[in-house]
Amino acid sequence: MPSNYRNFRTSVPWLILFLEAVFIILFYLFSDDNYAYKSAFYPAFQDVNYMVIFGFGFFLTFLKRYGFSSAGFNLLIVVLGVQYSVLIEELLVFLPQRKEKDGLERITRAVLSSTAVVISTGAVLGKTNPVQLILMTIVEIIVFYLSRWINIRFLQVPDIIGMMHVHLFGAYFGLAVSSRFSEPPPRSEKNASTPKSDLLSMLGTLFLWVFWPSFNSVLTMSNKNKAIYNTYFALAVSAVTAFMLSALTTKDGKFRMTHIHSAVLAGGVTVGYAAHSIKYPWIAMILGLLASVVTILGSYCLQRCLNPALKIHDTSGVHFTFGLPGVLGVLTEVVLVITENWTNLPGLGYWIMRDIGAYCLTISVALITGFITGFILNLRLFKNTPVSKYFEDQVYWEFPHLAVGF
Amino acid sequence: MPSNYRNFRTSVPWLILFLEAVFIILFYLFSDDNYAYKSAFYPAFQDVNYMVIFGFGFFLTFLKRYGFSSAGFNLLIVVLGVQYSVLIEELLVFLPQRKEKDGLERITRAVLSSTAVVISTGAVLGKTNPVQLILMTIVEIIVFYLSRWINIRFLQVPDIIGMMHVHLFGAYFGLAVSSRFSEPPPRSEKNASTPKSDLLSMLGTLFLWVFWPSFNSVLTMSNKNKAIYNTYFALAVSAVTAFMLSALTTKDGKFRMTHIHSAVLAGGVTVGYAAHSIKYPWIAMILGLLASVVTILGSYCLQRCLNPALKIHDTSGVHFTFGLPGVLGVLTEVVLVITENWTNLPGLGYWIMRDIGAYCLTISVALITGFITGFILNLRLFKNTPVSKYFEDQVYWEFPHLAVGF
Amino acid sequence: MPSNYRNFRTSVPWLILFLEAVFIILFYLFSDDNYAYKSAFYPAFQDVNYMVIFGFGFFLTFLKRYGFSSAGFNLLIVVLGVQYSVLIEELLVFLPQRKEKDGLERITRAVLSSTAVVISTGAVLGKTNPVQLILMTIVEIIVFYLSRWINIRFLQVPDIIGMMHVHLFGAYFGLAVSSRFSEPPPRSEKNASTPKSDLLSMLGTLFLWVFWPSFNSVLTMSNKNKAIYNTYFALAVSAVTAFMLSALTTKDGKFRMTHIHSAVLAGGVTVGYAAHSIKYPWIAMILGLLASVVTILGSYCLQRCLNPALKIHDTSGVHFTFGLPGVLGVLTEVVLVITENWTNLPGLGYWIMRDIGAYCLTISVALITGFITGFILNLRLFKNTPVSKYFEDQVYWEFPHLAVGF
Repeated sequence: MPSNYRNFRTSVPWLILFLEAVFIILFYLFSDDNYAYKSAFYPAFQDVNYMVIFGFGFFLTFLKRYGFSSAGFNLLIVVLGVQYSVLIEELLVFLPQRKEKDGLERITRAVLSSTAVVISTGAVLGKTNPVQLILMTIVEIIVFYLSRWINIRFLQVPDIIGMMHVHLFGAYFGLAVSSRFSEPPPRSEKNASTPKSDLLSMLGTLFLWVFWPSFNSVLTMSNKNKAIYNTYFALAVSAVTAFMLSALTTKDGKFRMTHIHSAVLAGGVTVGYAAHSIKYPWIAMILGLLASVVTILGSYCLQRCLNPALKIHDTSGVHFTFGLPGVLGVLTEVVLVITENWTNLPGLGYWIMRDIGAYCLTISVALITGFITGFILNLRLFKNTPVSKYFEDQVYWEFPHLAVGF
Repeated sequence: MPSNYRNFRTSVPWLILFLEAVFIILFYLFSDDNYAYKSAFYPAFQDVNYMVIFGFGFFLTFLKRYGFSSAGFNLLIVVLGVQYSVLIEELLVFLPQRKEKDGLERITRAVLSSTAVVISTGAVLGKTNPVQLILMTIVEIIVFYLSRWINIRFLQVPDIIGMMHVHLFGAYFGLAVSSRFSEPPPRSEKNASTPKSDLLSMLGTLFLWVFWPSFNSVLTMSNKNKAIYNTYFALAVSAVTAFMLSALTTKDGKFRMTHIHSAVLAGGVTVGYAAHSIKYPWIAMILGLLASVVTILGSYCLQRCLNPALKIHDTSGVHFTFGLPGVLGVLTEVVLVITENWTNLPGLGYWIMRDIGAYCLTISVALITGFITGFILNLRLFKNTPVSKYFEDQVYWEFPHLAVGF
Repeated sequence: MPSNYRNFRTSVPWLILFLEAVFIILFYLFSDDNYAYKSAFYPAFQDVNYMVIFGFGFFLTFLKRYGFSSAGFNLLIVVLGVQYSVLIEELLVFLPQRKEKDGLERITRAVLSSTAVVISTGAVLGKTNPVQLILMTIVEIIVFYLSRWINIRFLQVPDIIGMMHVHLFGAYFGLAVSSRFSEPPPRSEKNASTPKSDLLSMLGTLFLWVFWPSFNSVLTMSNKNKAIYNTYFALAVSAVTAFMLSALTTKDGKFRMTHIHSAVLAGGVTVGYAAHSIKYPWIAMILGLLASVVTILGSYCLQRCLNPALKIHDTSGVHFTFGLPGVLGVLTEVVLVITENWTNLPGLGYWIMRDIGAYCLTISVALITGFITGFILNLRLFKNTPVSKYFEDQVYWEFPHLAVGF
């Protein structure tokens, strides 16, 4: 089996070369040089860039033998995804954001879109080879654009809300893909962390935590600082709640590092939709608390009941880290719309339908296309990694250190 | 003894839940939505936030078996402390800074105040359980506000100077608390670092070093960039002096990592009070040099003479890292006042009295309340960690990795 | 032999003290307080500062027993280099940038100049003692200023181009110094990395990658954001190409971490000269691709053929990481000048001569002075580290951890 992949590996560089050549040719054909460059956009772009490259890269390094691949493939996927997203925005003239011509804003949007793929990667972490990851990137980004376009065009959802569906979309697409891959044996020795890798993953989590306010505010035009303020409080309460619930749900009242990793970020995901419009910090705080509760209870239920039943294996728990808090965020958005517009009944009905419709559409598109993508990636053509080689850097990376001792 | 704590642990989540509920209710009752949001405040807020979450979190990870707790509890303390500080500023109408209504500035001030607790944590690192840490946070922040309020109200100290007492206050409060805890055995195997944990701690130190200019300039209204410039030079000379003195004071002229960790930051602490008013960079440079000297000689004297005599155990050396350079900073402020105003004798006497009074007051309040806090935290009620369980992550965190090997 | 160094070590602190005293006295004599402080300069300064302290510090931590020295000496060299550079700009009245009086801009320029030394350090990493490193810093920075001054004065090269020669200068100066040091035995056990140290070095590389757009745009006055945009695309394509070529050139199509470390940054070095003037992103993308190709093929050829022939040992591969992409950048600049000005033949000839002249001059000065510096540093006076003690932290740092186990 591994010898199969060994022969197949030689095709990796040609796929990358082909893609990059296509990108450069398309950039040559379609890009123009009439960009404006708003000087104020650089810090926001940099925060988001930083967060995706470092934060997600090191967030995923918790597997003890998969650190190189986690941080390395994350970089590869992000840089491919960003170029591809910039091209899609350029080529697909029907997308409304095309009218903006700020160069840095385009990259920032592209980085945000790539987040979907990075989140999906978390679900299949350690189980896919690079060719599968690259194909997933190509399919997922175009489908995410399609889903946003339908949201904008037919449901009149503002694009800023559409973009915030990135967590939901990424999580459910990743889960659907993952459902088509073989499950690792339940007590796989390699599907585990060491204290060192957990600490490195904590570093990544803290990067994500610190930059999340930038992520939630980067596309907001007005109320930018209000979005930052609310996101900070939601994240703060999430972090507190994560410690509380972790001690409450584990044996002996100890803290569990995986709880902390996932639940401290939950508040940021949940308030993403409404951060700029929440009036009082206590609302953001309650959302942060609920998000953390949903994440930790979700991690308990999903890992015990749902995942074994559906035979889904979700390596880094994207379902409860990004999926469930995203669902909570949509519900929040609906509740906020109701409380703010309950005097205006006809408009209210429309807005509720719009938000729920956008939610259902996004999830459905993610699940269906993710399922199809997973099916395609499992064709024999792509030389699936055998289960015995899951979570193993050495399949993809040279280890000159081995001779000297790990 | 550990079985005692095992039963007690179940109370941790309820304490956190109670606090968080109180915070949310108070925010609900007292916060209003009339904040202005100065757009320019975000980068400064973010630098400080970043520095406290990462810098201090990883600065404290030098103990070989206490990395999870160092980085994790730091996050918990900071997010609790920030919410609590924001509330205190909102509730205590007698504080003068209440008139400013900028949302992000409020969080920034709250993050600065939480630094006091983070520094105190360094003195009792590895010796306290989470309940004790949380109670210490609650007591210390309110006492620090009280101390600043007395400074502002009765001594007419500008709040920007009062805030810079945060290092002094944090260090001496922590020492006083630590004096009430049992000392670990002198050659405890767990109270040590490994090269890996020292390197991670170096990462944290460099984070602090790079962001210190932001810390010293964030509250300055005018001369912001002058404060940055002077702080940079003070830090640069401190770093140089740290290497010099480390080679001079150790056997064989080797460098000692703990010297570097503490002394490279000394200049930043010392110039904190006067960074915006120092006229020439060479003054900042001399201060950086003196600060580093004080830190390294202090570390020698304190660890050999004073600490054993007073039976104080200061895990991460906050006395010489933050305390002594803070004292030097106060002296500097006095000397600068003298040199600038020596023609105006009556005013001079008043200013000197004011600065020294503020210093004495801050130290006294820190020591007395710290001592009382340490006494309370040592009540049997709080199930003190037994000395044999000091510096041990496993008391507070699940270690699923253990089965597989550390 | 090591006992020689043991006695010599005691001279390290006195050298540092002497230097620092001279710096402070010169600052006292020559600095004035009439700086303006443009408030907008801080973020740019901070990015560059951050990148040099962290990025290079951790980029160089790949050696398994040299992590303390890599990160620690990097800090020492940068802070000494920055103070020294600020002084040189102040003292040498013939340099044209003296007219600007912005305090933070002066430090930023000084940090950029220190990058030359940091890059040179990469070539001799693990082979020099601190005294040699400090002397190298002192010599290299003044020679780099001299080279820039000749470029500006006699060749009329804009200073922004002259500053971007920092990579070229640093790489070739370092190589020339390295050529005078004994080579380590070919299969030295200590001249190797572990997976953990490689991952830490990856962290440093990602820091450099994320902040490179700031580095390339910091001195540009107009078109700042265009420089950022182009640098981002060049870096993105370099990263993609690095993965492609790594899989293509290794046995079995696996990725090699050292390829990724060096080649992902190549695009940033290459577009440094022209980032603000490249009109279309596809040009930057092609440059990123070529830079990565040059780096990986260069690493193959140099390590197999050139280095053994010339007996040069280049620890962290600065020749192909910074040198060759820099050469490509100069060629690019020439080609861009030709394509843009081919109608204006007389001017064209002048511009080409100017760029090639500046290139030849910089390289020649770097090689000749580097060779001389290497010769001087190898005098018996400086107690060269014996080959058996290469790449070993324990020669310079106390290891209290050893008793307890690494």
